[in-house]
Amino acid sequence: MNPDQATALRDILQTQQIASLGTLHKGEPFVSMVPYAILPDGDGFVIHVSQLATHTKDMLLNPGVSLLVIALPNSEVPAQATARVTIQGQARLCADSTQGYAEAKTAYLSRFPQTAKMFSFADFSLFVIHPSSARFVGGFARATTIAPEVLVNILCKR
Amino acid sequence: MNPDQATALRDILQTQQIASLGTLHKGEPFVSMVPYAILPDGDGFVIHVSQLATHTKDMLLNPGVSLLVIALPNSEVPAQATARVTIQGQARLCADSTQGYAEAKTAYLSRFPQTAKMFSFADFSLFVIHPSSARFVGGFARATTIAPEVLVNILCKR
Repeated sequence: MNPDQATALRDILQTQQIASLGTLHKGEPFVSMVPYAILPDGDGFVIHVSQLATHTKDMLLNPGVSLLVIALPNSEVPAQATARVTIQGQARLCADSTQGYAEAKTAYLSRFPQTAKMFSFADFSLFVIHPSSARFVGGFARATTIAPEVLVNILCKR
Repeated sequence: MNPDQATALRDILQTQQIASLGTLHKGEPFVSMVPYAILPDGDGFVIHVSQLATHTKDMLLNPGVSLLVIALPNSEVPAQATARVTIQGQARLCADSTQGYAEAKTAYLSRFPQTAKMFSFADFSLFVIHPSSARFVGGFARATTIAPEVLVNILCKR
């Protein structure tokens, strides 16, 4: 991945707040919206979800998930060439008081401070999605698949 | 679904151009970006995809897909309350010169006229996704699941 692609990928993940989460639901894909934050060391995506929601039940049964983040539409770029990244990963419940919980909660609240009160709701849980690979498409015929350690380096570069 | 929700759902699907497509890939969900058009009778979503792409191979093996369309981010709405709709459906290859091809191509080109030349590429194909259900989330605690015939009525109402 060249430096321009890395910058574009980092910009998308750091400026967008909403991802599309793919979970396995009764053997079929199910895609739902999730706001996300990024762990400070870049090796996980934090989501805060209701245990009543389909995606949450899905993740508990099948932790293999897919997370798509798309750049904002831009009238100068055809829809087909919009930059985006798909992250394949494993979703793990991050229970209150377990290792990593405080860090994940801090990352989420620093991005979404208005959700603080939702952390008192008994049916909401944090999950962290740990990437196993990422596929970045920067435009027409500009696709690259990268390993998780490459993604970490890109996300942690200032 | 009340009239306000129906209007909001129609607005999202008719004003947005990009969906997140969930396919089944080696037993796991895979989410990718797809620009989409809507058939004139409202009963299918048209996408134009490369046979080289992962999602295309996935759909040919497992036609059960999920399509998420999200309203544009709005600074007055928390990310968590952004309106969105997930459509579960069956993806069918719509081959050149088969029934429905001309209509699907016209729908796609009327939305994306700049893609006309891509219809001459041998590796690109049209797929139509026929909804089996749709789940609309209009905001916090405002979720409704609707049947495909309800979606058709909503999309065809002027």
